[in-house]
Amino acid sequence: MRSFGSDNHSGIHPAIMNAIEKANTDHAVAYGGDDFSRQFSARIRDVFGETANPVIVFNGTGANVVALQAATRSFQSVFAPRTGHIAVDECGSPEFMTGAAIKTVDAANGGKLAPELLEPLLHGFGDEHHSQPKTVYISQCTELGTVYTPEEISALADFLHRRNMYLYMDGARIANAAVSLGKTLKEITVDCGVDILGFGGTKNGMMMGESVIAFRPELSSNMKYIRKQSAQLFSKMRYVACQFLAYLENDLWAENARHANDMAQLLRNGISSVGNFEFTQPTEANIILVKMPKQLTDSLLENHFFYVWNGENNEIRLVTSWDTTESDIEKFLNDMINVQ
Amino acid sequence: MRSFGSDNHSGIHPAIMNAIEKANTDHAVAYGGDDFSRQFSARIRDVFGETANPVIVFNGTGANVVALQAATRSFQSVFAPRTGHIAVDECGSPEFMTGAAIKTVDAANGGKLAPELLEPLLHGFGDEHHSQPKTVYISQCTELGTVYTPEEISALADFLHRRNMYLYMDGARIANAAVSLGKTLKEITVDCGVDILGFGGTKNGMMMGESVIAFRPELSSNMKYIRKQSAQLFSKMRYVACQFLAYLENDLWAENARHANDMAQLLRNGISSVGNFEFTQPTEANIILVKMPKQLTDSLLENHFFYVWNGENNEIRLVTSWDTTESDIEKFLNDMINVQ
Amino acid sequence: MRSFGSDNHSGIHPAIMNAIEKANTDHAVAYGGDDFSRQFSARIRDVFGETANPVIVFNGTGANVVALQAATRSFQSVFAPRTGHIAVDECGSPEFMTGAAIKTVDAANGGKLAPELLEPLLHGFGDEHHSQPKTVYISQCTELGTVYTPEEISALADFLHRRNMYLYMDGARIANAAVSLGKTLKEITVDCGVDILGFGGTKNGMMMGESVIAFRPELSSNMKYIRKQSAQLFSKMRYVACQFLAYLENDLWAENARHANDMAQLLRNGISSVGNFEFTQPTEANIILVKMPKQLTDSLLENHFFYVWNGENNEIRLVTSWDTTESDIEKFLNDMINVQ
Amino acid sequence: MRSFGSDNHSGIHPAIMNAIEKANTDHAVAYGGDDFSRQFSARIRDVFGETANPVIVFNGTGANVVALQAATRSFQSVFAPRTGHIAVDECGSPEFMTGAAIKTVDAANGGKLAPELLEPLLHGFGDEHHSQPKTVYISQCTELGTVYTPEEISALADFLHRRNMYLYMDGARIANAAVSLGKTLKEITVDCGVDILGFGGTKNGMMMGESVIAFRPELSSNMKYIRKQSAQLFSKMRYVACQFLAYLENDLWAENARHANDMAQLLRNGISSVGNFEFTQPTEANIILVKMPKQLTDSLLENHFFYVWNGENNEIRLVTSWDTTESDIEKFLNDMINVQ
Repeated sequence: MRSFGSDNHSGIHPAIMNAIEKANTDHAVAYGGDDFSRQFSARIRDVFGETANPVIVFNGTGANVVALQAATRSFQSVFAPRTGHIAVDECGSPEFMTGAAIKTVDAANGGKLAPELLEPLLHGFGDEHHSQPKTVYISQCTELGTVYTPEEISALADFLHRRNMYLYMDGARIANAAVSLGKTLKEITVDCGVDILGFGGTKNGMMMGESVIAFRPELSSNMKYIRKQSAQLFSKMRYVACQFLAYLENDLWAENARHANDMAQLLRNGISSVGNFEFTQPTEANIILVKMPKQLTDSLLENHFFYVWNGENNEIRLVTSWDTTESDIEKFLNDMINVQ
Repeated sequence: MRSFGSDNHSGIHPAIMNAIEKANTDHAVAYGGDDFSRQFSARIRDVFGETANPVIVFNGTGANVVALQAATRSFQSVFAPRTGHIAVDECGSPEFMTGAAIKTVDAANGGKLAPELLEPLLHGFGDEHHSQPKTVYISQCTELGTVYTPEEISALADFLHRRNMYLYMDGARIANAAVSLGKTLKEITVDCGVDILGFGGTKNGMMMGESVIAFRPELSSNMKYIRKQSAQLFSKMRYVACQFLAYLENDLWAENARHANDMAQLLRNGISSVGNFEFTQPTEANIILVKMPKQLTDSLLENHFFYVWNGENNEIRLVTSWDTTESDIEKFLNDMINVQ
Repeated sequence: MRSFGSDNHSGIHPAIMNAIEKANTDHAVAYGGDDFSRQFSARIRDVFGETANPVIVFNGTGANVVALQAATRSFQSVFAPRTGHIAVDECGSPEFMTGAAIKTVDAANGGKLAPELLEPLLHGFGDEHHSQPKTVYISQCTELGTVYTPEEISALADFLHRRNMYLYMDGARIANAAVSLGKTLKEITVDCGVDILGFGGTKNGMMMGESVIAFRPELSSNMKYIRKQSAQLFSKMRYVACQFLAYLENDLWAENARHANDMAQLLRNGISSVGNFEFTQPTEANIILVKMPKQLTDSLLENHFFYVWNGENNEIRLVTSWDTTESDIEKFLNDMINVQ
Repeated sequence: MRSFGSDNHSGIHPAIMNAIEKANTDHAVAYGGDDFSRQFSARIRDVFGETANPVIVFNGTGANVVALQAATRSFQSVFAPRTGHIAVDECGSPEFMTGAAIKTVDAANGGKLAPELLEPLLHGFGDEHHSQPKTVYISQCTELGTVYTPEEISALADFLHRRNMYLYMDGARIANAAVSLGKTLKEITVDCGVDILGFGGTKNGMMMGESVIAFRPELSSNMKYIRKQSAQLFSKMRYVACQFLAYLENDLWAENARHANDMAQLLRNGISSVGNFEFTQPTEANIILVKMPKQLTDSLLENHFFYVWNGENNEIRLVTSWDTTESDIEKFLNDMINVQ
C-alpha cells in the first residue's frame, strides 16, 4: 500500500530500525535511566544549545499537552490559529489536560500567526474575569504546509516576551521546515526566541517519539512530573532514545525531510503539468493543498489514499514523506491523466 | 547489564522484534486503520470472548487512566489497595485524569482486596456530600507478587455488581498470574466478572504497548475519545498491533511468563539455600520480596541492580523477566554467598 | 452611589429582603432539607412545568459550569457566541470545570447564534480526533442586550436535537427577555426546546442565587453531585430558596424586569434626544450599547459609573436595573447636555 | 424547629442581619469594588496581621478548594486526616478542582495530625513516579470536636516548612477553637506558622461566607483568578463583606462561639448526669460525640434532630451553635430521661 494520506503512513527508516535492533541487548534501567537516554539529552544540547532541557514523550498530542501544561496554568489562555492542530485534531486534549481556554485566531496568511493578529486579542491582563493570556501555539511547518521565516518567529517571540507570554512551537514537522528554510534546527527555534518546542520524529522516519524541549528553567522545572502525570513516560525508554540518536546522526532528519519536500515539489509540479489546478497554499514543505473536481477526486480515491481536506470547496491534501518514491508520484499523475 | 530491578528492564523478545521488522514495509493507514490493528481486535476477541472491546494505549499509566475514565465520573470514587500502582506510582495521574477520589484500602493479605475489606467503606450512596463509590482497582498479579484466585476475583466482582459498581483489573503482569494459576486469560478476567482490563505487554517481552479491554458496552462506548484525549492514540499503530499479534501467537505470552515465574522460584529457592531469609510475601508470580541485612544489600548493589522496597525493614524486591537467565541467578547467589 | 455599570450593582428588592428576614427564625435543616427549598422546587415546576428539575447554585458562573458539566463530557465541545459570557467573562471556568473545548462562533446578529452559523462547524461526529459537538450555549437576553424570539430558540433547539445535541440557555437576565417578548418564562424555554436553563435571580433584585433547571432526566440525574463537587451547594439553603419564592411570587421577577427594561428605553430615548449617537445594538432588554466621543465619555465618568465596552470604537455600555430611577436617568442626561 | 444536627442549621445573628439590611441602600460596584469589601480586607489585616491577604468565597467547600489550588499543583499531594472534611464530605471536589492526590492519614488522637504521623508518608521527593508531598490539611476545631493547641500547630508547621511544604487550616469552626483555647485568631494561625487559612463565618452566625486568607505572597498571587475560575466570586460582594464586618466587630465571633461551646459543655454534663454514656472524644469546642443505645437514639430522633455519626458503634453527634438555648438542652435531656 502507498499513501499520500499523511507522513505518519510511512514506515521506519532502515537506519532507525537498525538502531532499535542494536539497542535490544541485555537489560537497561527503565524510565530514562539508560545510556541511550543520557546520550539523547546530551545530543539535544549539542543541536539546540545549552539551554535545551528535553524530555521524551510518546506522540504529538503528548508533546503538545506536556508543553502547554508546563507553560500555562488553568486560569491562563492559549492562543492558536483556527487551523492549528490543538484546535482541530486533539479531541480537546489541551483543554482537558491544562484546564485552560484555547482561543483560536483566524490566520489567513497560510495559517500563520503574527503580532498584528494577536494584539487585538491580548487584553484583560490582571482582570480576574478574563482568562489571562499566556501562551501562543504555532506549528512549524503549519498544518497547511506553510513555513514561518526566522524573522516571523522572532517577531512573534519578541512581541510575546514583552507581554510576559510564551511561544510554544509544535515541531511535529520541524525538520521539513528547517530544510525548506535552509536553516539549522537551532536557528529556527531557540535562536528566534521560541520558549518551548515539540520536536517531532514520528512523521519523519521514526517508529514513534517526540520530545518536549524547554529553553527556560521555569518551563522545565516541573516537566518530569507533568510528563508522568500525563501518562507520557515510556518505561523501556532506550527504544525511543536510540531512535532519536539515529535520527540526529549524520543529519538523517534533514535527509529524510529534504526528500519529502523534494517529492512534494515534484508532485506539485506534476499536477500543474497535468492541468490548471488551483493550489490553495504555497507548498513550502511536504504538504500540498489543491482543489480538484469532485469527480476526479473520487476516481483517484479508488486507487490512491489521501484525504479530502475541505469537501465544500473540493480541496484535497497530499502529503509526501521520507519514503515517498518517484514511482508513487508517477502513478498518481498517470491516474490523474487517465481519469480526467 | 543484567538487572532484577524490574521486568521492564528486559528487552524485546526476538519473535516480537521480528514482527516489528516484518511490519515495516510500505505505507499503512495511521491511528489503527491498518491491517495489523484490525487483526489485533479480532485476536483479542478470540482470546477474551465476543464481549471484549479493546483499544491499544502506550503504557501502563495510560491503560489505568483510560480504563478509570471509562468507568468513573469525577464525582465517583475509585478504591484501590494502599500498595496499588495507581495509589503509589502514577504521580497522581488517576486523580488528574479522572478528577475522582482515589481511596486506599489497607490490604494485609498480599495487597489483595476482598469484599470484607471494601464493605465498611462503601457508604454514602445517593448522598451528594460523598464521592459515590463506583470502581475498584486491583492488579493481577499485585505489586507484591501475589495472585488473586479466580474465586477471589469472582467474589469481588459479584460483590461490586450488586452495588452497581465496576471491577477494573490492572493486568500489567496478568500473564504471570495466568501462568501461575494454570488458567487462560479469559478464565481469570471476563469469566470472573472483570468489567474492564488493562492487558499488559511491555513487561513481558514487548517493546511497548498495553491494551484496555472493556467487557461491557457502556464502558467501551466512549473509549476511543477518552484514549485520544488522554494522548494515548498511537499514530503508526501497526507497530504496536503487530507486537501484540506476535505476543498472542503460539501463546508466547504464556511461555515468557512461565519462564519469568520459573526463574523467580529458582531465585527464591536459591536464596533460601544460602541462608535463613524472611520472605515477606509468597512468590506466586515473578516478584520476590525478601528481607536482607542492610550490609548484605549494600554489597550486592555494587554488582547487581535491584530496588530496596522498604528501607525501614530491610526489604528488597527482586523481579525476574522473560529473559532472566539461570546464569543471572547463579551470579547473584554466588555473590550472596561471597559477601556474607 | 448610583450606577449604570451593571444590574448587579443594584440592591436587594424590599420584598426579597423581607423574605430573608422572615426565614430567619429557628433552625432549619441545611443543604436543601428545609421547607423553603422544598417549596422552591415545587414552585419551579409550577412555573416551568413538570419536567423541570432545579438545583440552586450561588452565582452565574456556578450556573454555567454546573449546567455545562451536566450536558457535556470532556471529549465533547460547547459552542458559544464569541461575545458569550462563558467565552469572555468566566476566566476559563467552563474549560476548567468541564475539560471540554469551548468553541466560539462569530454572531453578527446581535450576538445571537442560529443554525446557519453552527452548521459549518458541526462536523467530525464519530471521529476521535475531533472533540464531539454536544452543547450550544446561548444567553437570553444576550450580553449585547438583544433578545432571541421564541421562533429563533425553537429553530436552534430543533436543529440541535436532530444532531443529538443540547441547547443550554444562560438566563442570567431571562426575566428581562421574557418581559421584552411578552411571554412567560416557560414559553421561551422548555416550550421552545431548551434542554437546560440557568435561571438567574441576582441581577434582578435578589441578593444572590441562580438555579440550574434541567428539562431532561439524563441531564438532572447527576446534577446534585456535580453541584456539590463544583462547590455550589449552599449550606443555609433556606436563605436563597426564600428569595426565589419571593422573586416568583406575584410575578415580582416580571415587575422588576419590566421596570429595568422601561428605564432602558427611557435612557435610550433620552440619549437620542440629546444628540445623534449611534446605538450599536437594538435595546431589547435593559442594556444599551452606544458610541460616544471619548471626551464625553471621560467627562461623564467623573460623576457616573458605567463601563467602556469597546475602547477602540468608543462604545459604552449602560445597564439599567430594577431600582434605576427616573432621577438617575435625568441626572445622566443633564450631565450629557452640560458636558457636551 | 430546633436542631443539634449541625451549627449550619442555625440562623443569622441579629447583628449580622442588621448589617445586611444597612448595606442594602443604593448601588455598589460588584465583585468586591465596594466599600464594605475594602473595609473587610483592612479588617482582616487588623485581626491577622499585615501578611494576611484575604478573598471572600461562598462556602466551606469553596474555601477548601481555592486554598488547596493556591498551594498545590496537580502533581503534588495533599495529606489530610482520614476523618477530615476534604476526605469525607466534599464529593471529591478537592481532587476535581486540584487534580491532585488527597492522601488520608489515620489520626487516632482526636482526628489530629502530627509530625510523627506524617513523617513515614513523606517520601519520594524528586521522584517523578510519586505525587510530590506539598500541602497538609487540618481543621481547627476538627470534625470530631477536638482542638489543636498552638504548640501542636507550630510543631506541624515547622515540620512541614523544613520540607518546603505548606500547612492549610480549614477554619470552618476556628472561632470555637480560638475561644476554647483562650487565644486570638492570629495566635492560633499565622503566629503558629499556618500558611493559608479558611476562615469560616457560616457556622457561627453569618448567613453565608468564608474567607481564604493567604499568609505568603506566593500563595496569594494567583488567588483571585483561582477564585473566579472556581465559581466563587460573589457579584454583590457587599452583602457578604458587611456580614464579616459585623462578625468581627466587638468580637461577635468570639461571643457566638463561646455561647456554642458553653452549650456543648452544658449538654455534655447533662448527658453525663442522665446516665453513664461513653463520650468517644473530648468536647473541646461545640461538638459532642457520644454512644447511646440504638433504642434511645431512635426514640430521641422522633422529637429531636441530630445525626447518627457511626451506626455500627451507636455513636451520635450533637452540635451546638450560637443560638442553642438552655431550653433546647433541657428538652433533650428530659426526653433522654423519659424514654430511657
